[in-house]
Amino acid sequence: MLRPLIALDWGTTRARAFLIAATGEVLERRVADRGIQSVAPGGYPAAFAELAGDFRAAAPDAVIVLAGMVGSRNGWVEARYVACPASAADIAAAAIEVELDAGTRATILPGLSCDDGAFDVMRGEETLIVGLGLTDGIVCLPGTHSKWAEIRQGRITRFASFMTGEVYGLLRNDSILARLAEAPSEADATEGAARGRAAADRPGGLLNAAFAARTEVLAGRMAGGAVGPYLSALLVGRELAGAEALFGLGTQVHLVADGVLAQSYGAGLAARGHAVRVVTPEQAFIAGIGRLASGLAA
Amino acid sequence: MLRPLIALDWGTTRARAFLIAATGEVLERRVADRGIQSVAPGGYPAAFAELAGDFRAAAPDAVIVLAGMVGSRNGWVEARYVACPASAADIAAAAIEVELDAGTRATILPGLSCDDGAFDVMRGEETLIVGLGLTDGIVCLPGTHSKWAEIRQGRITRFASFMTGEVYGLLRNDSILARLAEAPSEADATEGAARGRAAADRPGGLLNAAFAARTEVLAGRMAGGAVGPYLSALLVGRELAGAEALFGLGTQVHLVADGVLAQSYGAGLAARGHAVRVVTPEQAFIAGIGRLASGLAA
Repeated sequence: MLRPLIALDWGTTRARAFLIAATGEVLERRVADRGIQSVAPGGYPAAFAELAGDFRAAAPDAVIVLAGMVGSRNGWVEARYVACPASAADIAAAAIEVELDAGTRATILPGLSCDDGAFDVMRGEETLIVGLGLTDGIVCLPGTHSKWAEIRQGRITRFASFMTGEVYGLLRNDSILARLAEAPSEADATEGAARGRAAADRPGGLLNAAFAARTEVLAGRMAGGAVGPYLSALLVGRELAGAEALFGLGTQVHLVADGVLAQSYGAGLAARGHAVRVVTPEQAFIAGIGRLASGLAA
Repeated sequence: MLRPLIALDWGTTRARAFLIAATGEVLERRVADRGIQSVAPGGYPAAFAELAGDFRAAAPDAVIVLAGMVGSRNGWVEARYVACPASAADIAAAAIEVELDAGTRATILPGLSCDDGAFDVMRGEETLIVGLGLTDGIVCLPGTHSKWAEIRQGRITRFASFMTGEVYGLLRNDSILARLAEAPSEADATEGAARGRAAADRPGGLLNAAFAARTEVLAGRMAGGAVGPYLSALLVGRELAGAEALFGLGTQVHLVADGVLAQSYGAGLAARGHAVRVVTPEQAFIAGIGRLASGLAA
């Protein structure tokens, strides 16, 4: 890459903007609550200027690449999903261009679709996966709707989504368990997580194990502070069991996460006997967007 | 039973009151939104009079028996849980008496507890289970928090709860899937249920299969009207798979349900190869309370 890069990870609720030197070094970064749901039709050039206008002033020759929901039907312009299996070159080849202002173009990357029995889609995660530079491997991207992907011979062959983060929020905050849940002490967090991980393998399954949080607390056998950590570890454990059944997981899982998600998924994977390599979402995005931008230039 | 019976199934949100002749015939029935959460401390005799005062006037010599949450810590008086395994005689023996007014007593039935790895409790369902009169069998009582129970040699040996109905409500009404869900046509209901039943056995598990409702609708491969029926059948299917793993289920399941729950659980059980005997909650309650009242008299 001989030119600098202005790269946006432009999602539904948030946008992350980066100014990246031709060397690959991140010179500037910014995050703003300017996801596509806050942008009116026709408002994208102005929103871009707000997010990264100063990056353009600093690097007028920069290549501009946008990833994520900005390329969805509800975004700037729809960049159609690329069907798996797909390589980085396939993704770059399906990118589309928009005019930012007279004479300046930006590239919008497409998402991926997968029809592996159930139909599934992703937008934005494909860039992070590409950033890992894998030839073969299994990638976990935890979140509200976690994604797991399989890479074989340099192509993303298939992937699957899990509603883990969203179901956690519903159970923790909106179910009958919410009344019993309290802010966890450090001991509650440790105990709740250990019990949740164990409960994930109980034969009754998630619907049975989730209810146990209630009865255990009412019986005085679990602290109210352990309810949240219990549910989190239970749900992560069920996701991991599902991913094992779908993908095998093999010797090592590439975990794209930081903070509490890196911790909880790391602990869950370790408890199930999987080696883990952790890459932060920013590292993966920067590497992925650089790789895809090179593909665009080629 | 030589005396008539006034029996209340007195739950958290609702109370059902029955006047039952000495012959076992139901002479009067009533349901009211007068669950224990609507009754202030000290207000139970007045609430009872409101619910069944005319039954007492009609049958002044009636035995009065109350089942359900009325015997919980937040009810009239706490009737401690009887630990499984427990027979009808064990339940009757642990009933406690309260004074309704001078000279008139009522009996409050206890609930059951089970410590089969995970601790679990029930209040009210034990009466319905007793009403089935089983020596050996597996009972399913679907609902917001479904219960499954195993009966061996005339005793309830163990049971388990599933958050099925509550999780259905959360996913259908409060999750990202709610925006896509529409009122189902008859065809949507049939198609959604068939697909949900099939999805319950996918290797990715519940968190993965629930998300598929979103991607299938967005891809135009499933109608918005099928989302609710899909989720319902998926969750019932996961509950049934959990119950199979916990209890085996054997040749026949005794299903205590009516209306849509009898239909959806009956279809789910049939699809998994289990024969089903359906008993309505009222039939089971009337038979159970009669059996337990006989135990009290003995």
